[in-house]
Amino acid sequence: MKSYLSASQMELRNEYNQIKEQYGEFCKSSLKLDMSRGKPGADQLDLIEGMLTVLAGNQDCYTRNGWDCRNYGLVDGIPEAKALFAELIGVQESELIVMGNSSLNIMYDTMADAMLFGVNGKEPWCKQGTIKFLCPAPGYDRHFTLCETFGIEMIPVKMNADGPDMDQVEQLASSDASIKGIWCVPKYSNPTGITYSDEVVRRFASLKTAAEDFCIYWDNAYLIHDLNAETEPLLDLLAACKQQGTENRVFMFASTSKITFPGAGVALFAASETNIARRKKKLCAQTIGHDKLNQLRHVKYFGCASGVKEHMQKQAAILRPKFDCVLKTLKAELGDKGIASWHHPKGGYFISLDVYENTARRTWELAKNAGVTLTNAGATFPYNQDPRDCNLRIAPTYPSNEELQTAIRILCCCVRLSALEKLLQA
Amino acid sequence: MKSYLSASQMELRNEYNQIKEQYGEFCKSSLKLDMSRGKPGADQLDLIEGMLTVLAGNQDCYTRNGWDCRNYGLVDGIPEAKALFAELIGVQESELIVMGNSSLNIMYDTMADAMLFGVNGKEPWCKQGTIKFLCPAPGYDRHFTLCETFGIEMIPVKMNADGPDMDQVEQLASSDASIKGIWCVPKYSNPTGITYSDEVVRRFASLKTAAEDFCIYWDNAYLIHDLNAETEPLLDLLAACKQQGTENRVFMFASTSKITFPGAGVALFAASETNIARRKKKLCAQTIGHDKLNQLRHVKYFGCASGVKEHMQKQAAILRPKFDCVLKTLKAELGDKGIASWHHPKGGYFISLDVYENTARRTWELAKNAGVTLTNAGATFPYNQDPRDCNLRIAPTYPSNEELQTAIRILCCCVRLSALEKLLQA
Repeated sequence: MKSYLSASQMELRNEYNQIKEQYGEFCKSSLKLDMSRGKPGADQLDLIEGMLTVLAGNQDCYTRNGWDCRNYGLVDGIPEAKALFAELIGVQESELIVMGNSSLNIMYDTMADAMLFGVNGKEPWCKQGTIKFLCPAPGYDRHFTLCETFGIEMIPVKMNADGPDMDQVEQLASSDASIKGIWCVPKYSNPTGITYSDEVVRRFASLKTAAEDFCIYWDNAYLIHDLNAETEPLLDLLAACKQQGTENRVFMFASTSKITFPGAGVALFAASETNIARRKKKLCAQTIGHDKLNQLRHVKYFGCASGVKEHMQKQAAILRPKFDCVLKTLKAELGDKGIASWHHPKGGYFISLDVYENTARRTWELAKNAGVTLTNAGATFPYNQDPRDCNLRIAPTYPSNEELQTAIRILCCCVRLSALEKLLQA
Repeated sequence: MKSYLSASQMELRNEYNQIKEQYGEFCKSSLKLDMSRGKPGADQLDLIEGMLTVLAGNQDCYTRNGWDCRNYGLVDGIPEAKALFAELIGVQESELIVMGNSSLNIMYDTMADAMLFGVNGKEPWCKQGTIKFLCPAPGYDRHFTLCETFGIEMIPVKMNADGPDMDQVEQLASSDASIKGIWCVPKYSNPTGITYSDEVVRRFASLKTAAEDFCIYWDNAYLIHDLNAETEPLLDLLAACKQQGTENRVFMFASTSKITFPGAGVALFAASETNIARRKKKLCAQTIGHDKLNQLRHVKYFGCASGVKEHMQKQAAILRPKFDCVLKTLKAELGDKGIASWHHPKGGYFISLDVYENTARRTWELAKNAGVTLTNAGATFPYNQDPRDCNLRIAPTYPSNEELQTAIRILCCCVRLSALEKLLQA
């Protein structure tokens, strides 16, 4: 049977009975698979075993210029880590701070700082009444959780194939001074996998904003997370902003959570020299410094930026078959049914699946009952409100290839079943 | 010559000429010694070399119950780290979160959280107008810096030999609802080295406060940092508060910065179960979790709480001669001059030296010019204002024994010289 949309009620009924039976079979197999988060698999982590012991003795704990990384100091990171990561993310060393283990934590702090102390010398956001953020959606649920935590009102913005809908962004940002920023995952975006076009980046750099303390939160979480040898190029926002004199609106985040160890990686904060100086001053009050031994482990293990890229190709060799498996199964099971569409990402950690309208929650529930836990339906939208209830985020990295194959077959069965339920109601 | 205070002008003049000459000699030797922070020496850090490689391969990275510490999850710490550190600091596992590498960072976050979200369900401090904190002084300069960062007004409280002056604390806390908390270093206090008496702890537990959102910030930085085999006992504040029903006012901080690696240790947050639940919920938004590999390193290296204590005895063997050296030199050079007094700490990282009134800044400057950098005079008081300009903090841990000997001789010379200058002016 081809597209459900052109099928007769009889055909749909037959299909429903068949798929319902298939679903029943899946439920009998006692699968328990959590695909809710973008978690690396153990095989990916096994690749970096050598980093565990790269600091093998006391004498290994010193920087090139003799600083003892076991002791206090260097609140903005060790020089060789700054050099390596500045090259990797394409900023100057003076525009970078190498921090702790969580870029989400840097984002939280950046927002908390804006709330309490303000941005670019303006009044603290907590004294400015309602604060709003633009949230391209579908997007990353934990960005939205941060806004909710701080009571920041979220305005969804449409995601296009080349990034956020910039017409909408420009219209909103220029007309409302309570809109203080926007969340962006500019490369291999979470969850759609798209990379922002040069034009989108340039329009961000020259964006007219009603608020003088408008911020672009640029979460470059997947900056070198290519699935293939070639990368999708991303224009340098900080450089583009410097040309426009708008560099103080840029706050960039990245980490090695999905390069080395999630939870034991190194997190990065990049911004204009002005904002780096301000942040560094703040850090001196805020912490005794970050884990320099872990920074040194990263530097000694990788040697240089190209060492990191080589390592990512080994990871890609593990991840590519997983993405291929999902895409092939989606195509085989849903390709001709007219009820679902999806992206073919060239990198990142997710495949974004749009199912038949108003069936994402039902699909999620069916999958859950059959043992496959996906990221909550709706989670990719602010306030968990997917206006068309159609988006699901597939995180293929954690399961084994075998489990993944089964899980996606179950998911496809659920997508079909929920669409059929809806179509038969109509 | 005995006490300067009973000397004639002639005697003082002679002594001045002699000490001035001595000082000139010291200045000629081109010593450069930074004793400004309580930093462990490299010999102390060398003791823990084994921790660097205690996780030697992929198979070592799992908790007892099979959790992969390389990956995401366990935002409140790995179970075995909670067990070990709960025993060490004397709380229940349910009253503890094992965090990142910096207890100062936890204190910052606790204060930022109170500012933005309030304490015990009360209004955020940032919406309550002027907020004040009680600051026992002399105290820890970085506590005071936190208050300044958040615009919290500091009220100095006198430090007695058994802790803060509780008459003063009770009078202030009960009469002013804008006083929201107090900073405490209850054991081997920074800088005076004293440990709070049982009575002081009990009075904290039963303290009547005008503010319902009053907090005790209990920075137990030196909880097992004994210089000798015996320890100075400290009553359990959380237990005492539970008896009074005041446990929600307690926020406890500790770390292994001065047990394992400063900057690559493990930091601890302990509080009532109510406050732990609240903090844990918050952490889920705030971070992807802390470095569990580093937590696991600590657990595998020490094995159990008594393993930590054994290790601290090895450190004590390094530190004891340093403290002895300072105390002996102070006694020899200043013991009979009537112009200085000091504490004899049984643990911790500092010796607090009170010099002749209104000469601490001058002494600091003289020492600096002779190549010995101490913590800034005044730094141990809120706003750097030592009302009697007499307190200096000696941090003997970082220099070698030889350097230390020289440095303290220079310091004593400067103490005498500045006192003589003052006495000859009078």
